[in-house]
Amino acid sequence: MDVAGHAMENGFSKKSLKRSAASDRVAGREILRWSRGALATEHDALAVEEPLEIRLGGRRFTITMRTPGHDEELAAGFMLSEGFIATRDELGEIRRVRDRKGAPEPNVIDIVLEVPAAHLRERLRRNFPITSSCGLCGRTTIESLSQRISPVASSLRIGAAAIAKLGPSMKKSQAVFAETGGLHAAALFNRKGALDCVCEDIGRHNATDKVLGDALLRGRVPLGESLLMVSGRLSFEIVQKAAAAGVPILAGVSAPSSLAVELADELGVTLIGFLRGTTFNVYAHPERVVMRR
Amino acid sequence: MDVAGHAMENGFSKKSLKRSAASDRVAGREILRWSRGALATEHDALAVEEPLEIRLGGRRFTITMRTPGHDEELAAGFMLSEGFIATRDELGEIRRVRDRKGAPEPNVIDIVLEVPAAHLRERLRRNFPITSSCGLCGRTTIESLSQRISPVASSLRIGAAAIAKLGPSMKKSQAVFAETGGLHAAALFNRKGALDCVCEDIGRHNATDKVLGDALLRGRVPLGESLLMVSGRLSFEIVQKAAAAGVPILAGVSAPSSLAVELADELGVTLIGFLRGTTFNVYAHPERVVMRR
Repeated sequence: MDVAGHAMENGFSKKSLKRSAASDRVAGREILRWSRGALATEHDALAVEEPLEIRLGGRRFTITMRTPGHDEELAAGFMLSEGFIATRDELGEIRRVRDRKGAPEPNVIDIVLEVPAAHLRERLRRNFPITSSCGLCGRTTIESLSQRISPVASSLRIGAAAIAKLGPSMKKSQAVFAETGGLHAAALFNRKGALDCVCEDIGRHNATDKVLGDALLRGRVPLGESLLMVSGRLSFEIVQKAAAAGVPILAGVSAPSSLAVELADELGVTLIGFLRGTTFNVYAHPERVVMRR
Repeated sequence: MDVAGHAMENGFSKKSLKRSAASDRVAGREILRWSRGALATEHDALAVEEPLEIRLGGRRFTITMRTPGHDEELAAGFMLSEGFIATRDELGEIRRVRDRKGAPEPNVIDIVLEVPAAHLRERLRRNFPITSSCGLCGRTTIESLSQRISPVASSLRIGAAAIAKLGPSMKKSQAVFAETGGLHAAALFNRKGALDCVCEDIGRHNATDKVLGDALLRGRVPLGESLLMVSGRLSFEIVQKAAAAGVPILAGVSAPSSLAVELADELGVTLIGFLRGTTFNVYAHPERVVMRR
Protein backbone atom coordinates (compact mmCIF):
# COMPACT_ATOMS: atom_id res chain seq x y z
CA MET A 1 0.00 0.00 0.00
CA ASP A 2 1.64 3.18 -1.14
CA VAL A 3 0.62 6.04 1.06
CA ALA A 4 3.78 8.02 0.44
CA GLY A 5 2.17 10.71 -1.68
CA HIS A 6 -0.51 11.33 0.88
CA ALA A 7 1.94 11.26 3.76
CA MET A 8 3.79 14.09 2.06
CA GLU A 9 0.64 16.13 1.79
CA ASN A 10 -0.04 15.46 5.47
CA GLY A 11 3.17 17.04 6.54
CA PHE A 12 4.79 13.72 7.51
CA SER A 13 7.87 12.37 5.81
CA LYS A 14 7.74 9.93 2.90
CA LYS A 15 6.90 6.31 3.62
CA SER A 16 6.28 7.14 7.23
CA LEU A 17 4.42 3.90 7.97
CA LYS A 18 6.96 1.10 8.11
CA ARG A 19 6.77 -2.44 9.37
CA SER A 20 9.19 -3.32 12.11
CA ALA A 21 11.88 -5.66 10.80
CA ALA A 22 11.37 -7.85 13.84
CA SER A 23 7.64 -8.35 13.46
CA ASP A 24 4.76 -8.11 11.03
CA ARG A 25 2.60 -7.11 13.97
CA VAL A 26 4.17 -3.71 14.58
CA ALA A 27 4.47 -0.73 12.23
CA GLY A 28 6.55 2.36 12.90
CA ARG A 29 5.17 5.85 12.35
CA GLU A 30 6.40 9.40 12.69
CA ILE A 31 3.86 11.33 14.76
CA LEU A 32 3.36 14.65 16.50
CA ARG A 33 3.06 14.60 20.28
CA TRP A 34 1.40 17.40 22.24
CA SER A 35 2.83 17.67 25.72
CA ARG A 36 3.45 20.58 28.06
CA GLY A 37 2.11 23.10 25.61
CA ALA A 38 4.26 22.10 22.65
CA LEU A 39 4.02 19.83 19.60
CA ALA A 40 7.09 17.70 18.92
CA THR A 41 7.86 15.03 16.32
CA GLU A 42 8.26 11.55 17.80
CA HIS A 43 8.42 7.96 16.64
CA ASP A 44 5.55 5.65 17.57
CA ALA A 45 4.86 1.91 17.19
CA LEU A 46 1.44 0.84 15.87
CA ALA A 47 -0.31 -2.50 16.12
CA VAL A 48 -0.81 -3.82 12.59
CA GLU A 49 -4.42 -4.38 11.47
CA GLU A 50 -5.19 -6.19 8.21
CA PRO A 51 -8.13 -8.13 6.79
CA LEU A 52 -8.07 -11.92 6.82
CA GLU A 53 -10.36 -13.67 4.36
CA ILE A 54 -11.42 -17.15 5.46
CA ARG A 55 -12.60 -19.40 2.65
CA LEU A 56 -14.54 -22.61 3.05
CA GLY A 57 -13.64 -25.13 0.36
CA GLY A 58 -12.44 -22.32 -1.87
CA ARG A 59 -15.49 -20.07 -1.45
CA ARG A 60 -15.37 -16.81 0.44
CA PHE A 61 -16.89 -17.37 3.87
CA THR A 62 -16.01 -14.46 6.15
CA ILE A 63 -13.62 -11.58 6.57
CA THR A 64 -12.20 -10.44 9.87
CA MET A 65 -9.94 -7.48 10.61
CA ARG A 66 -7.03 -8.94 12.52
CA THR A 67 -3.41 -8.52 13.51
CA PRO A 68 -1.31 -10.90 11.34
CA GLY A 69 0.16 -13.94 13.07
CA HIS A 70 -1.39 -17.28 14.08
CA ASP A 71 -3.73 -17.03 11.11
CA GLU A 72 -4.28 -20.79 10.88
CA GLU A 73 -5.14 -20.87 14.60
CA LEU A 74 -7.47 -17.92 14.13
CA ALA A 75 -9.32 -19.63 11.29
CA ALA A 76 -9.54 -22.93 13.19
CA GLY A 77 -10.66 -21.21 16.38
CA PHE A 78 -13.30 -19.22 14.52
CA MET A 79 -14.79 -22.39 13.08
CA LEU A 80 -14.85 -23.95 16.54
CA SER A 81 -16.02 -20.99 18.58
CA GLU A 82 -18.80 -20.07 16.17
CA GLY A 83 -20.09 -23.64 16.22
CA PHE A 84 -19.27 -24.83 12.70
CA ILE A 85 -17.11 -27.67 14.00
CA ALA A 86 -16.91 -29.34 17.40
CA THR A 87 -13.78 -31.51 17.18
CA ARG A 88 -10.35 -31.60 15.56
CA ASP A 89 -11.52 -34.45 13.30
CA GLU A 90 -14.04 -32.21 11.60
CA LEU A 91 -11.27 -29.88 10.46
CA GLY A 92 -9.86 -31.45 7.31
CA GLU A 93 -7.30 -29.02 6.03
CA ILE A 94 -6.16 -25.44 6.60
CA ARG A 95 -4.01 -23.91 3.93
CA ARG A 96 -2.70 -20.58 2.68
CA VAL A 97 -4.14 -19.63 -0.67
CA ARG A 98 -1.46 -19.00 -3.29
CA ASP A 99 -1.44 -16.40 -6.02
CA ARG A 100 -0.87 -17.12 -9.73
CA LYS A 101 2.89 -17.18 -9.27
CA GLY A 102 2.62 -19.69 -6.42
CA ALA A 103 3.46 -17.24 -3.65
CA PRO A 104 1.31 -17.47 -0.51
CA GLU A 105 -1.31 -14.74 -0.17
CA PRO A 106 -0.66 -13.10 3.21
CA ASN A 107 -4.33 -12.48 3.99
CA VAL A 108 -6.28 -15.46 2.67
CA ILE A 109 -6.81 -18.85 4.37
CA ASP A 110 -8.78 -21.75 2.92
CA ILE A 111 -10.39 -24.39 5.11
CA VAL A 112 -11.79 -27.79 4.13
CA LEU A 113 -14.18 -29.28 6.67
CA GLU A 114 -14.75 -32.99 7.21
CA VAL A 115 -18.40 -32.50 7.99
CA PRO A 116 -21.18 -34.19 5.97
CA ALA A 117 -22.68 -31.64 3.58
CA ALA A 118 -26.17 -31.88 5.11
CA HIS A 119 -24.80 -31.24 8.62
CA LEU A 120 -22.73 -28.32 7.39
CA ARG A 121 -25.73 -26.71 5.71
CA GLU A 122 -27.69 -27.03 8.94
CA ARG A 123 -24.86 -25.51 10.95
CA LEU A 124 -24.44 -22.68 8.47
CA ARG A 125 -28.15 -21.98 8.76
CA ARG A 126 -28.06 -21.93 12.56
CA ASN A 127 -24.73 -20.29 13.24
CA PHE A 128 -24.36 -16.64 12.20
CA PRO A 129 -23.53 -17.06 8.55
CA ILE A 130 -21.96 -13.65 8.36
CA THR A 131 -20.98 -13.11 4.76
CA SER A 132 -19.13 -10.13 3.46
CA SER A 133 -18.51 -9.22 -0.12
CA CYS A 134 -16.73 -6.02 0.59
CA GLY A 135 -13.67 -6.44 -1.58
CA LEU A 136 -11.57 -5.66 1.46
CA CYS A 137 -9.06 -8.42 1.02
CA GLY A 138 -5.77 -8.61 -0.73
CA ARG A 139 -3.37 -5.84 -1.43
CA THR A 140 -5.84 -3.37 -2.83
CA THR A 141 -7.48 -2.72 0.53
CA ILE A 142 -6.79 0.96 0.90
CA GLU A 143 -7.31 1.71 -2.77
CA SER A 144 -10.74 0.09 -2.89
CA LEU A 145 -11.77 1.81 0.32
CA SER A 146 -10.64 5.16 -0.98
CA GLN A 147 -12.94 4.71 -3.94
CA ARG A 148 -15.85 3.83 -1.69
CA ILE A 149 -15.75 6.87 0.58
CA SER A 150 -14.98 10.42 -0.49
CA PRO A 151 -12.11 12.18 1.29
CA VAL A 152 -13.24 14.65 3.92
CA ALA A 153 -13.24 18.21 2.61
CA SER A 154 -13.08 20.59 5.55
CA SER A 155 -10.90 23.55 6.35
CA LEU A 156 -11.55 23.19 10.08
CA ARG A 157 -8.61 24.00 12.33
CA ILE A 158 -8.55 23.74 16.08
CA GLY A 159 -6.11 24.72 18.78
CA ALA A 160 -4.09 21.97 20.46
CA ALA A 161 -4.99 23.24 23.92
CA ALA A 162 -8.71 22.91 23.08
CA ILE A 163 -8.22 19.31 21.97
CA ALA A 164 -6.52 18.45 25.23
CA LYS A 165 -9.70 19.50 27.06
CA LEU A 166 -12.09 17.15 25.20
CA GLY A 167 -11.43 14.06 27.29
CA PRO A 168 -12.56 15.39 30.67
CA SER A 169 -15.64 16.94 29.03
CA MET A 170 -16.74 13.59 27.57
CA LYS A 171 -16.03 11.71 30.76
CA LYS A 172 -18.20 14.03 32.83
CA SER A 173 -21.22 13.27 30.66
CA GLN A 174 -20.89 9.48 30.69
CA ALA A 175 -23.68 8.36 32.97
CA VAL A 176 -23.77 4.57 32.70
CA PHE A 177 -20.04 4.05 32.57
CA ALA A 178 -19.68 5.58 36.00
CA GLU A 179 -22.17 3.04 37.32
CA THR A 180 -21.05 -0.12 35.53
CA GLY A 181 -17.51 0.48 34.33
CA GLY A 182 -18.60 -1.43 31.25
CA LEU A 183 -19.57 0.94 28.48
CA HIS A 184 -17.86 2.65 25.60
CA ALA A 185 -18.73 6.21 24.66
CA ALA A 186 -18.60 8.39 21.56
CA ALA A 187 -19.11 12.15 21.49
CA LEU A 188 -19.36 14.96 18.98
CA PHE A 189 -17.85 18.35 19.80
CA ASN A 190 -18.23 21.58 17.85
CA ARG A 191 -15.31 23.67 16.56
CA LYS A 192 -15.11 25.53 19.86
CA GLY A 193 -14.75 22.27 21.78
CA ALA A 194 -18.28 22.36 23.24
CA LEU A 195 -20.04 19.00 23.62
CA ASP A 196 -22.89 18.47 21.12
CA CYS A 197 -23.88 14.87 21.83
CA VAL A 198 -22.60 11.86 23.74
CA CYS A 199 -23.84 8.25 23.52
CA GLU A 200 -22.85 5.11 25.34
CA ASP A 201 -22.92 1.48 24.28
CA ILE A 202 -21.39 -1.88 25.03
CA GLY A 203 -19.71 -1.52 21.62
CA ARG A 204 -17.52 1.30 20.38
CA HIS A 205 -18.95 1.00 16.87
CA ASN A 206 -22.50 1.31 18.15
CA ALA A 207 -21.70 4.34 20.31
CA THR A 208 -20.15 5.96 17.23
CA ASP A 209 -23.17 5.11 15.05
CA LYS A 210 -25.51 6.56 17.70
CA VAL A 211 -23.89 10.01 17.75
CA LEU A 212 -23.53 10.09 13.95
CA GLY A 213 -27.16 8.97 13.58
CA ASP A 214 -28.28 11.69 15.98
CA ALA A 215 -26.48 14.27 13.83
CA LEU A 216 -27.96 12.82 10.64
CA LEU A 217 -31.50 12.94 12.01
CA ARG A 218 -30.96 16.59 12.96
CA GLY A 219 -29.86 17.41 9.41
CA ARG A 220 -26.26 18.16 10.44
CA VAL A 221 -24.42 15.75 8.13
CA PRO A 222 -21.82 16.22 6.64
CA LEU A 223 -20.16 17.14 9.93
CA GLY A 224 -17.41 19.33 8.46
CA GLU A 225 -17.18 21.51 11.59
CA SER A 226 -17.17 18.73 14.19
CA LEU A 227 -14.75 16.58 16.16
CA LEU A 228 -15.62 12.98 16.95
CA MET A 229 -14.15 11.42 20.08
CA VAL A 230 -14.36 7.74 21.06
CA SER A 231 -13.29 5.84 24.14
CA GLY A 232 -10.90 2.94 23.59
CA ARG A 233 -8.95 2.07 20.47
CA LEU A 234 -9.13 3.60 17.01
CA SER A 235 -9.68 0.85 14.47
CA PHE A 236 -9.98 1.03 10.74
CA GLU A 237 -13.78 0.87 10.99
CA ILE A 238 -14.07 3.93 13.23
CA VAL A 239 -12.05 6.01 10.75
CA GLN A 240 -14.30 4.77 7.97
CA LYS A 241 -17.42 5.75 9.91
CA ALA A 242 -16.03 9.22 10.68
CA ALA A 243 -15.15 9.84 7.04
CA ALA A 244 -18.55 8.61 5.83
CA ALA A 245 -20.15 11.29 8.00
CA GLY A 246 -17.66 13.95 6.84
CA VAL A 247 -15.97 14.36 10.23
CA PRO A 248 -12.55 16.04 9.78
CA ILE A 249 -11.04 15.31 13.22
CA LEU A 250 -11.24 11.96 15.04
CA ALA A 251 -9.77 11.48 18.52
CA GLY A 252 -9.49 8.42 20.75
CA VAL A 253 -8.38 7.59 24.26
CA SER A 254 -6.20 4.66 23.16
CA ALA A 255 -3.99 3.59 20.28
CA PRO A 256 -4.90 3.62 16.59
CA SER A 257 -4.16 0.58 14.43
CA SER A 258 -1.85 0.73 11.42
CA LEU A 259 -4.80 0.48 9.04
CA ALA A 260 -6.66 3.24 10.87
CA VAL A 261 -3.70 5.55 10.27
CA GLU A 262 -3.36 4.58 6.61
CA LEU A 263 -7.07 5.09 5.99
CA ALA A 264 -7.01 8.45 7.80
CA ASP A 265 -4.10 9.48 5.53
CA GLU A 266 -6.13 8.58 2.45
CA LEU A 267 -9.48 9.99 3.54
CA GLY A 268 -8.24 13.32 4.87
CA VAL A 269 -9.12 12.64 8.52
CA THR A 270 -6.99 14.17 11.28
CA LEU A 271 -6.34 11.23 13.60
CA ILE A 272 -5.53 11.82 17.28
CA GLY A 273 -4.72 8.99 19.70
CA PHE A 274 -3.84 8.57 23.37
CA LEU A 275 -5.86 11.66 24.27
CA ARG A 276 -5.37 11.43 28.04
CA GLY A 277 -4.95 14.06 30.68
CA THR A 278 -3.31 16.98 28.90
CA THR A 279 -1.37 15.09 26.22
CA PHE A 280 -2.16 13.46 22.86
CA ASN A 281 -0.56 12.14 19.66
CA VAL A 282 -1.42 13.22 16.09
CA TYR A 283 -1.11 10.33 13.61
CA ALA A 284 -2.49 11.78 10.37
CA HIS A 285 -3.28 15.17 8.85
CA PRO A 286 -1.75 17.32 11.60
CA GLU A 287 -2.36 20.48 9.54
CA ARG A 288 -5.74 20.90 11.30
CA VAL A 289 -4.10 21.10 14.73
CA VAL A 290 -2.73 24.59 15.32
CA MET A 291 -0.69 25.96 18.19
CA ARG A 292 -2.73 29.14 18.80
CA ARG A 293 -2.25 29.07 22.56
CA MET B 1 -35.67 -14.03 30.14
CA ASP B 2 -36.18 -16.20 33.09
CA VAL B 3 -32.88 -17.33 34.47
CA ALA B 4 -34.18 -17.85 37.97
CA GLY B 5 -33.93 -21.63 37.95
CA HIS B 6 -30.38 -21.54 36.78
CA ALA B 7 -29.43 -18.77 39.17
CA MET B 8 -30.58 -21.01 42.02
CA GLU B 9 -28.37 -23.82 40.78
CA ASN B 10 -25.49 -21.36 40.57
CA GLY B 11 -25.67 -20.50 44.19
CA PHE B 12 -27.07 -17.00 43.58
CA SER B 13 -30.47 -15.89 44.75
CA LYS B 14 -33.59 -16.07 42.60
CA LYS B 15 -34.01 -13.56 39.80
CA SER B 16 -30.63 -12.12 40.58
CA LEU B 17 -30.36 -10.20 37.30
CA LYS B 18 -32.67 -7.21 37.53
CA ARG B 19 -33.04 -4.09 35.45
CA SER B 20 -32.54 -0.85 37.27
CA ALA B 21 -35.84 1.00 37.58
CA ALA B 22 -34.09 4.17 36.45
CA SER B 23 -32.65 2.80 33.24
CA ASP B 24 -32.91 -0.03 30.73
CA ARG B 25 -29.17 0.29 30.29
CA VAL B 26 -28.20 -1.04 33.72
CA ALA B 27 -28.99 -4.40 35.32
CA GLY B 28 -28.34 -5.29 38.94
CA ARG B 29 -26.66 -8.54 39.94
CA GLU B 30 -25.64 -10.24 43.15
CA ILE B 31 -22.00 -11.30 42.83
CA LEU B 32 -19.12 -12.67 44.86
CA ARG B 33 -16.12 -10.41 45.34
CA TRP B 34 -12.66 -11.74 46.19
CA SER B 35 -10.64 -9.21 48.14
CA ARG B 36 -8.04 -9.48 50.90
CA GLY B 37 -8.22 -13.25 50.92
CA ALA B 38 -11.99 -13.57 51.36
CA LEU B 39 -15.08 -14.01 49.17
CA ALA B 40 -18.02 -11.77 50.04
CA THR B 41 -21.44 -11.27 48.46
CA GLU B 42 -21.89 -7.84 46.91
CA HIS B 43 -24.26 -6.06 44.56
CA ASP B 44 -22.98 -5.04 41.15
CA ALA B 45 -24.38 -2.99 38.23
CA LEU B 46 -24.02 -4.43 34.73
CA ALA B 47 -24.24 -2.67 31.39
CA VAL B 48 -27.17 -4.16 29.47
CA GLU B 49 -26.38 -5.90 26.16
CA GLU B 50 -29.16 -7.00 23.82
CA PRO B 51 -29.47 -7.71 20.11
CA LEU B 52 -30.98 -5.08 17.81
CA GLU B 53 -32.33 -6.31 14.52
CA ILE B 54 -32.30 -3.68 11.78
CA ARG B 55 -34.71 -4.36 8.92
CA LEU B 56 -34.65 -2.71 5.53
CA GLY B 57 -38.15 -2.30 4.13
CA GLY B 58 -39.38 -5.11 6.35
CA ARG B 59 -36.61 -7.59 5.51
CA ARG B 60 -33.94 -8.58 8.00
CA PHE B 61 -30.77 -6.68 7.18
CA THR B 62 -28.36 -6.92 10.09
CA ILE B 63 -28.15 -7.65 13.78
CA THR B 64 -25.93 -5.83 16.22
CA MET B 65 -25.37 -6.50 19.90
CA ARG B 66 -25.99 -3.17 21.58
CA THR B 67 -26.97 -1.40 24.79
CA PRO B 68 -30.62 -0.31 24.48
CA GLY B 69 -31.28 3.40 24.06
CA HIS B 70 -31.02 5.70 21.02
CA ASP B 71 -31.95 2.75 18.80
CA GLU B 72 -33.31 4.97 16.02
CA GLU B 73 -30.09 6.99 16.08
CA LEU B 74 -28.05 3.77 16.03
CA ALA B 75 -29.93 2.44 13.00
CA ALA B 76 -29.67 5.78 11.16
CA GLY B 77 -26.00 6.13 12.02
CA PHE B 78 -25.24 2.60 10.88
CA MET B 79 -26.82 3.28 7.48
CA LEU B 80 -24.77 6.46 7.16
CA SER B 81 -21.45 5.26 8.52
CA GLU B 82 -21.48 2.06 6.49
CA GLY B 83 -22.17 3.98 3.31
CA PHE B 84 -25.74 2.93 2.51
CA ILE B 85 -26.97 6.53 2.62
CA ALA B 86 -25.16 9.85 2.41
CA THR B 87 -27.80 12.42 3.39
CA ARG B 88 -30.83 12.82 5.62
CA ASP B 89 -33.07 12.91 2.52
CA GLU B 90 -32.19 9.33 1.68
CA LEU B 91 -33.59 8.14 4.99
CA GLY B 92 -37.31 7.81 4.46
CA GLU B 93 -38.67 6.36 7.66
CA ILE B 94 -37.42 4.74 10.86
CA ARG B 95 -39.96 2.88 12.90
CA ARG B 96 -40.29 0.35 15.71
CA VAL B 97 -41.71 -2.94 14.55
CA ARG B 98 -44.86 -3.93 16.45
CA ASP B 99 -45.91 -7.37 17.55
CA ARG B 100 -49.30 -8.96 16.81
CA LYS B 101 -50.93 -7.16 19.70
CA GLY B 102 -49.61 -3.82 18.49
CA ALA B 103 -46.99 -3.43 21.20
CA PRO B 104 -43.58 -2.18 20.07
CA GLU B 105 -40.87 -4.85 19.82
CA PRO B 106 -38.01 -3.59 22.00
CA ASN B 107 -35.27 -4.99 19.76
CA VAL B 108 -36.43 -4.54 16.18
CA ILE B 109 -36.19 -1.39 14.01
CA ASP B 110 -37.41 -1.09 10.42
CA ILE B 111 -35.94 1.43 7.99
CA VAL B 112 -37.29 2.58 4.65
CA LEU B 113 -34.71 4.23 2.41
CA GLU B 114 -35.45 6.86 -0.22
CA VAL B 115 -32.78 5.56 -2.55
CA PRO B 116 -33.52 4.35 -6.10
CA ALA B 117 -33.56 0.54 -6.14
CA ALA B 118 -30.69 0.27 -8.61
CA HIS B 119 -28.47 2.56 -6.47
CA LEU B 120 -29.35 0.62 -3.34
CA ARG B 121 -28.44 -2.70 -4.94
CA GLU B 122 -25.09 -1.25 -6.00
CA ARG B 123 -24.45 0.09 -2.48
CA LEU B 124 -25.44 -3.21 -0.92
CA ARG B 125 -23.03 -4.96 -3.23
CA ARG B 126 -20.17 -2.60 -2.38
CA ASN B 127 -20.75 -1.97 1.30
CA PHE B 128 -20.28 -4.93 3.65
CA PRO B 129 -23.67 -6.58 3.31
CA ILE B 130 -23.28 -8.45 6.55
CA THR B 131 -26.32 -10.65 6.91
CA SER B 132 -27.12 -12.76 9.91
CA SER B 133 -29.84 -15.33 10.24
CA CYS B 134 -28.95 -16.34 13.73
CA GLY B 135 -32.36 -16.21 15.35
CA LEU B 136 -30.79 -14.04 18.02
CA CYS B 137 -33.54 -11.46 18.13
CA GLY B 138 -36.65 -11.11 20.17
CA ARG B 139 -37.32 -12.54 23.56
CA THR B 140 -36.09 -16.05 22.88
CA THR B 141 -32.46 -15.00 22.68
CA ILE B 142 -31.08 -16.98 25.55
CA GLU B 143 -33.30 -19.97 24.92
CA SER B 144 -32.26 -20.31 21.28
CA LEU B 145 -28.61 -19.90 22.19
CA SER B 146 -28.85 -22.54 24.86
CA GLN B 147 -30.09 -24.96 22.24
CA ARG B 148 -27.23 -24.11 19.93
CA ILE B 149 -24.36 -24.75 22.33
CA SER B 150 -24.17 -27.54 24.89
CA PRO B 151 -23.63 -26.50 28.51
CA VAL B 152 -20.07 -27.00 29.73
CA ALA B 153 -19.68 -30.23 31.67
CA SER B 154 -16.59 -29.95 33.84
CA SER B 155 -15.95 -30.63 37.49
CA LEU B 156 -12.91 -28.32 37.50
CA ARG B 157 -12.42 -26.33 40.69
CA ILE B 158 -9.71 -23.80 41.33
CA GLY B 159 -8.52 -21.82 44.32
CA ALA B 160 -9.38 -18.14 44.50
CA ALA B 161 -5.79 -17.20 45.27
CA ALA B 162 -4.62 -18.96 42.09
CA ILE B 163 -7.14 -17.01 40.00
CA ALA B 164 -5.87 -13.74 41.42
CA LYS B 165 -2.42 -14.56 39.99
CA LEU B 166 -3.53 -15.06 36.37
CA GLY B 167 -3.48 -11.41 35.37
CA PRO B 168 0.18 -10.66 36.02
CA SER B 169 1.14 -13.94 34.31
CA MET B 170 -0.71 -13.00 31.11
CA LYS B 171 0.60 -9.46 31.10
CA LYS B 172 4.21 -10.62 31.32
CA SER B 173 3.84 -12.63 28.11
CA GLN B 174 2.20 -9.91 26.01
CA ALA B 175 4.95 -8.82 23.65
CA VAL B 176 3.31 -6.45 21.21
CA PHE B 177 1.09 -4.69 23.69
CA ALA B 178 4.10 -3.47 25.60
CA GLU B 179 5.39 -1.91 22.39
CA THR B 180 2.22 -0.42 20.94
CA GLY B 181 -0.29 -0.18 23.75
CA GLY B 182 -2.81 -1.22 21.13
CA LEU B 183 -3.51 -4.95 21.32
CA HIS B 184 -5.91 -7.22 23.09
CA ALA B 185 -4.78 -10.58 24.45
CA ALA B 186 -6.34 -13.92 25.29
CA ALA B 187 -4.66 -16.73 27.21
CA LEU B 188 -5.33 -20.30 28.25
CA PHE B 189 -4.16 -21.49 31.67
CA ASN B 190 -4.18 -25.05 32.99
CA ARG B 191 -5.85 -26.11 36.25
CA LYS B 192 -2.73 -25.25 38.22
CA GLY B 193 -2.74 -21.70 36.85
CA ALA B 194 0.23 -22.25 34.51
CA LEU B 195 0.13 -20.43 31.17
CA ASP B 196 -0.50 -22.73 28.17
CA CYS B 197 -0.87 -20.24 25.33
CA VAL B 198 -1.26 -16.49 24.82
CA CYS B 199 -2.19 -14.66 21.61
CA GLU B 200 -2.57 -11.01 20.78
CA ASP B 201 -4.75 -9.24 18.27
CA ILE B 202 -6.29 -5.88 17.51
CA GLY B 203 -9.61 -7.57 18.32
CA ARG B 204 -10.59 -9.41 21.48
CA HIS B 205 -12.63 -11.93 19.51
CA ASN B 206 -9.70 -12.74 17.25
CA ALA B 207 -7.28 -13.15 20.17
CA THR B 208 -9.79 -15.56 21.73
CA ASP B 209 -10.22 -17.51 18.49
CA LYS B 210 -6.43 -17.78 18.13
CA VAL B 211 -5.87 -19.46 21.51
CA LEU B 212 -8.90 -21.72 21.08
CA GLY B 213 -7.75 -22.61 17.56
CA ASP B 214 -4.27 -23.42 18.86
CA ALA B 215 -5.82 -25.79 21.39
CA LEU B 216 -8.04 -27.37 18.73
CA LEU B 217 -5.11 -28.00 16.39
CA ARG B 218 -3.23 -29.66 19.27
CA GLY B 219 -6.19 -31.98 19.89
CA ARG B 220 -6.99 -30.45 23.31
CA VAL B 221 -10.65 -29.54 22.74
CA PRO B 222 -12.95 -29.74 24.71
CA LEU B 223 -10.95 -27.70 27.20
CA GLY B 224 -12.62 -29.01 30.35
CA GLU B 225 -9.53 -28.45 32.51
CA SER B 226 -8.64 -24.96 31.29
CA LEU B 227 -9.25 -21.32 32.19
CA LEU B 228 -9.60 -18.71 29.46
CA MET B 229 -8.60 -15.15 30.23
CA VAL B 230 -9.18 -12.13 28.00
CA SER B 231 -8.14 -8.50 28.23
CA GLY B 232 -10.93 -5.95 28.15
CA ARG B 233 -14.65 -6.51 28.47
CA LEU B 234 -16.60 -9.75 28.61
CA SER B 235 -19.31 -9.67 25.97
CA PHE B 236 -21.92 -12.23 25.13
CA GLU B 237 -19.83 -13.46 22.18
CA ILE B 238 -16.78 -14.26 24.30
CA VAL B 239 -18.89 -16.42 26.63
CA GLN B 240 -20.32 -18.19 23.60
CA LYS B 241 -16.85 -18.87 22.22
CA ALA B 242 -15.61 -20.22 25.58
CA ALA B 243 -18.60 -22.55 25.91
CA ALA B 244 -18.25 -23.79 22.33
CA ALA B 245 -14.71 -24.90 23.20
CA GLY B 246 -15.85 -26.45 26.50
CA VAL B 247 -13.98 -23.96 28.72
CA PRO B 248 -15.44 -24.04 32.27
CA ILE B 249 -13.90 -20.81 33.64
CA LEU B 250 -13.73 -17.49 31.79
CA ALA B 251 -12.03 -14.44 33.29
CA GLY B 252 -11.68 -10.87 32.06
CA VAL B 253 -9.90 -7.70 33.08
CA SER B 254 -13.00 -5.54 32.71
CA ALA B 255 -16.77 -5.71 33.15
CA PRO B 256 -19.10 -8.38 31.75
CA SER B 257 -22.31 -7.35 30.00
CA SER B 258 -25.74 -8.41 31.25
CA LEU B 259 -26.12 -10.88 28.40
CA ALA B 260 -22.69 -12.35 29.05
CA VAL B 261 -23.76 -13.13 32.61
CA GLU B 262 -27.10 -14.61 31.54
CA LEU B 263 -25.46 -16.78 28.91
CA ALA B 264 -22.79 -17.94 31.39
CA ASP B 265 -25.62 -18.90 33.78
CA GLU B 266 -27.25 -20.97 31.06
CA LEU B 267 -24.16 -22.58 29.61
CA GLY B 268 -22.48 -23.51 32.88
CA VAL B 269 -19.52 -21.15 32.52
CA THR B 270 -17.92 -19.64 35.62
CA LEU B 271 -17.65 -15.95 34.77
CA ILE B 272 -15.04 -13.77 36.47
CA GLY B 273 -14.72 -10.04 35.82
CA PHE B 274 -12.56 -7.13 36.95
CA LEU B 275 -9.61 -9.47 37.53
CA ARG B 276 -7.10 -6.78 38.50
CA GLY B 277 -4.27 -6.78 40.95
CA THR B 278 -5.32 -9.20 43.67
CA THR B 279 -9.12 -8.81 43.43
CA PHE B 280 -11.90 -10.10 41.16
CA ASN B 281 -15.67 -10.56 40.92
CA VAL B 282 -17.52 -13.83 40.24
CA TYR B 283 -20.70 -13.29 38.18
CA ALA B 284 -21.88 -16.82 37.39
CA HIS B 285 -21.29 -20.39 38.60
CA PRO B 286 -19.15 -19.54 41.64
CA GLU B 287 -19.15 -23.20 42.69
CA ARG B 288 -15.91 -23.73 40.75
CA VAL B 289 -14.08 -21.09 42.80
CA VAL B 290 -12.95 -22.55 46.12
CA MET B 291 -11.29 -20.92 49.09
CA ARG B 292 -8.56 -23.54 49.65
CA ARG B 293 -5.98 -21.02 50.84
